[in-house]
Amino acid sequence: MVDPFVYHNPTKVYFGNDALTHIHEELPRWGKNALLVYGGGSIKDNGIYDTIVEEIRKAGISAYEISGVRPNPEIGLAEKGARFCRETGIDLILAAGGGSVIDTAKVIAGSALYEENPWDLVKSRAQISHALPLLAIPTMAATGSEMNGCAVITNPDTHEKLGWTTEALRPKVSFLCPQNTYTVSPAQTAYGSADILSHILEVYLNRAEGFDAMDGFMESMMRSVIRWAPEAMKDGFSEEARSNLLWDSEWAINDLIDRGHSLSWTCHALEHELSACYLIPHGLGLAILTPAFMEYVLNDDTAPRLAQFAVRVMGVKEGKNEKKTARKGIKKLKKFFTRTLGLPASLSEINIDDRLFEEMAAHALSWKSRDGILHGFYPLTEEDLAAIYRKAL
Amino acid sequence: MVDPFVYHNPTKVYFGNDALTHIHEELPRWGKNALLVYGGGSIKDNGIYDTIVEEIRKAGISAYEISGVRPNPEIGLAEKGARFCRETGIDLILAAGGGSVIDTAKVIAGSALYEENPWDLVKSRAQISHALPLLAIPTMAATGSEMNGCAVITNPDTHEKLGWTTEALRPKVSFLCPQNTYTVSPAQTAYGSADILSHILEVYLNRAEGFDAMDGFMESMMRSVIRWAPEAMKDGFSEEARSNLLWDSEWAINDLIDRGHSLSWTCHALEHELSACYLIPHGLGLAILTPAFMEYVLNDDTAPRLAQFAVRVMGVKEGKNEKKTARKGIKKLKKFFTRTLGLPASLSEINIDDRLFEEMAAHALSWKSRDGILHGFYPLTEEDLAAIYRKAL
Repeated sequence: MVDPFVYHNPTKVYFGNDALTHIHEELPRWGKNALLVYGGGSIKDNGIYDTIVEEIRKAGISAYEISGVRPNPEIGLAEKGARFCRETGIDLILAAGGGSVIDTAKVIAGSALYEENPWDLVKSRAQISHALPLLAIPTMAATGSEMNGCAVITNPDTHEKLGWTTEALRPKVSFLCPQNTYTVSPAQTAYGSADILSHILEVYLNRAEGFDAMDGFMESMMRSVIRWAPEAMKDGFSEEARSNLLWDSEWAINDLIDRGHSLSWTCHALEHELSACYLIPHGLGLAILTPAFMEYVLNDDTAPRLAQFAVRVMGVKEGKNEKKTARKGIKKLKKFFTRTLGLPASLSEINIDDRLFEEMAAHALSWKSRDGILHGFYPLTEEDLAAIYRKAL
Repeated sequence: MVDPFVYHNPTKVYFGNDALTHIHEELPRWGKNALLVYGGGSIKDNGIYDTIVEEIRKAGISAYEISGVRPNPEIGLAEKGARFCRETGIDLILAAGGGSVIDTAKVIAGSALYEENPWDLVKSRAQISHALPLLAIPTMAATGSEMNGCAVITNPDTHEKLGWTTEALRPKVSFLCPQNTYTVSPAQTAYGSADILSHILEVYLNRAEGFDAMDGFMESMMRSVIRWAPEAMKDGFSEEARSNLLWDSEWAINDLIDRGHSLSWTCHALEHELSACYLIPHGLGLAILTPAFMEYVLNDDTAPRLAQFAVRVMGVKEGKNEKKTARKGIKKLKKFFTRTLGLPASLSEINIDDRLFEEMAAHALSWKSRDGILHGFYPLTEEDLAAIYRKAL
C-alpha cells in the first residue's frame, strides 16, 4: 500500500485575528537579536509593520531589518541577509509577507550558520542540521511556506528557480491572521488560489494507492478553494473567505496529504522554468499550465483519476465514459481559472512564445530526474514536457 | 467565524511496517533509563516485545518494565509507575499497547516529576509544564492517544473515569506499524472503529460555523472507517484495511479537526460513566450510546447537520425532509454498528439496567459543565442525559 514515511510537522500555529498579539510571547523563546525580513512595504501601508515593531518592543529584544524582497525572490538578497546575520550576531529571523518573503527568510536562516555560498546550498539540496529559528507572519494565502520546510528561490544570472527542502528550514512558529490578507488584491488572490489548487493537484493526480481518507481531504480542500477564492476576490474583507483560504493553503502543502508516496511535481517543475525566464507570477503560470498538463496526460491509465476529480471536485455528473467525464472536468477547471478568477488562458496571452520551450523542458527534467523521465501521474520525457508547454501556448 | 486557536502537534510519527526499526535511533535522543509500559502480555505472543527489547539493546540504554495494564486502566498502576520512576531515576517512558497502555504511560510520565498524588493531578486537570518524554508504540487503531495530549484513567474507588489533557503528555515520537495491529481480534477491531467514529462525530455534530474543508476531512475519514473496519474484521492481515484504520485513528483526534471550536463531547462524557461503573469496553459503550444520542437531539435545529451526515457519510439519498433524511442516516449507522460490526444494540443486551442512570448523568454533567448544561450539538440538562441512557436501554 503506502510506502513507509515519517510525519513530523512541529510548527506551532497561532490562527485568528488576534494571532499577532502572541508575537511578543514567542520572540524571547527563540532569540535576542532578530532580523525582520519583508517585501516592498505593503506591510507599512496596512499597519502590520507597526504591530510587529510594537510586539518586538514588548518582547524586549533588539531587531534589524532587511526589506525589498520581490516576487520570484532572488538569491542575492538572501546572500546579503545571511552575511548580515553572521556579522551582526542575529540569532532569530522574523518574516512578514507572502511566500517570496518567507522563502527568502528561509534561505537566510538556512545559510547564516554556514560559510558556503547560499546558492551552492540550494543547488546541492543541502540537508543542513542547523538553521536560525524562523518565525513567519504570512500576508497572503498561497505557498503555505509558513508551515513547511521548503524554500523556492531564483538565480537571475543562471535563469534558475529552484526549490530547497530541508527540515531545518521549517518555521518554528507561524502567526496566521486572516485580517492580514484582507488587502490582498483580487489578482493576487487569484494567483494564490491557483497555487493552492496546484499544490493539491500535484499530489492528487497520481496512480499510487494511498490512504482513502486523503482523497477526501484533498477533494474537500479543492472544493473549498473553488468556493471561496471568488468570494475573496469580490469582497476582500470576507472573514469567512479569507479564513478558509488561509487554512486550506497550509494543509495543501504541509506534509500531510503526500505522505506515503514519492511524487514528482510536474506542473511546478514546468512553472518554475517559466517564471525564472519570464518573471510571471507563479500562480498565474500554474493556472495556465495545469489544464494543459491534464489534457496532455489524459489516457486510459489516467482517466479514472481525472474523472474522479471531475465528479467530486468540479461537480461533473458521473458518466460511463471516464475519458469524457475527465475532459469535462478539465474544461470546467479551465473555465474556473479564466472566467471565474479572470486569469489568462494561454501563454501567448501573456506574450510568451515557444522560443525557450525545449531549453526549459530540458532544464526542468535535468533538475527533477536522474533517468531522463519525470515520474509522476504519467511518465514524461523531455519531448513530452516541451509538448505541454506548446499545448499551453 | 472560527474562534482563534493554536495548532501545535509536534509528535514525530514513523509509519509503515518498518516503523519499529527506528526505535533504537530515537531512544538515545530522549533518555538513558527507560521504563517500558505494557499490558497483559499480548506483545509477547506477537513478537513486538522481542523487537522492542532488541531495539533497546541496540540503543545502548538501560530499561525497566511495568506491565499488567488492563482496559479501562486504573490509577493505581500509574501511581506505582510514577513512584518507581522517581526512585529509579527513569528519564524516558516507552509504551507499547493499546490506548489503555499509552494512557497509563502518559499519567506516569506526567506525574513522575511531581510529588503530588497522580489522581489529584488528573482530577485538577493540572496544566503541568514538564513530563518525562514518552515514546509510543500503538498496537491497535482506536484512541489515537499516540498523537495527542490526553489520557483517560479510572479510579475504581470512586467509580470515576476522567480525562486529563495537557500538552506535556503528548508523545514525542510514535511508531505506527500496521502489522502490529494484524492480530487485533474482530471484536476489538469493532470497538476501536466505533471509538474512531465517535471521536469524529463528537466534533462533526456541532452547530458552529467552521472551516469548509474540515467537514470534508471528517466525512472522508468516517467513510474510510465504515469501509475498512469490516474488512479488517474479516481479514485481520489486510494491510490496506489496517493502514487506513490506523492513520484515520490519528487524524480523528490529534487537534486538527476540532480547531476553532469549543465543544463538549457528550457521548464520551456519557460513556466514561458507563465504563467506570460497568467496566465495558469503551468503544462498545460508544456504539450503543451514539445512535441514541443522535435520535434524542434530532430536532429542527440539528436536522440539517444530521441530514448532511446521512447523505455524505451513510450514503442516504438526499430528500426534501431533513428530519426524515437524518433519521435514515441514524438508522443506517445503528445498522452498521449492530449488523456489520456485530455489536450489541442496547444497554440491556449487555446487562446494564437503569439503576445508575440518574447518578451517572449527574456526575457526567458536574465533570463537564459549570452551569448545569452540557453545551454541545444541543444544550443538554441532567434530565436529558439520563433520558439518553434510557433511550439506549
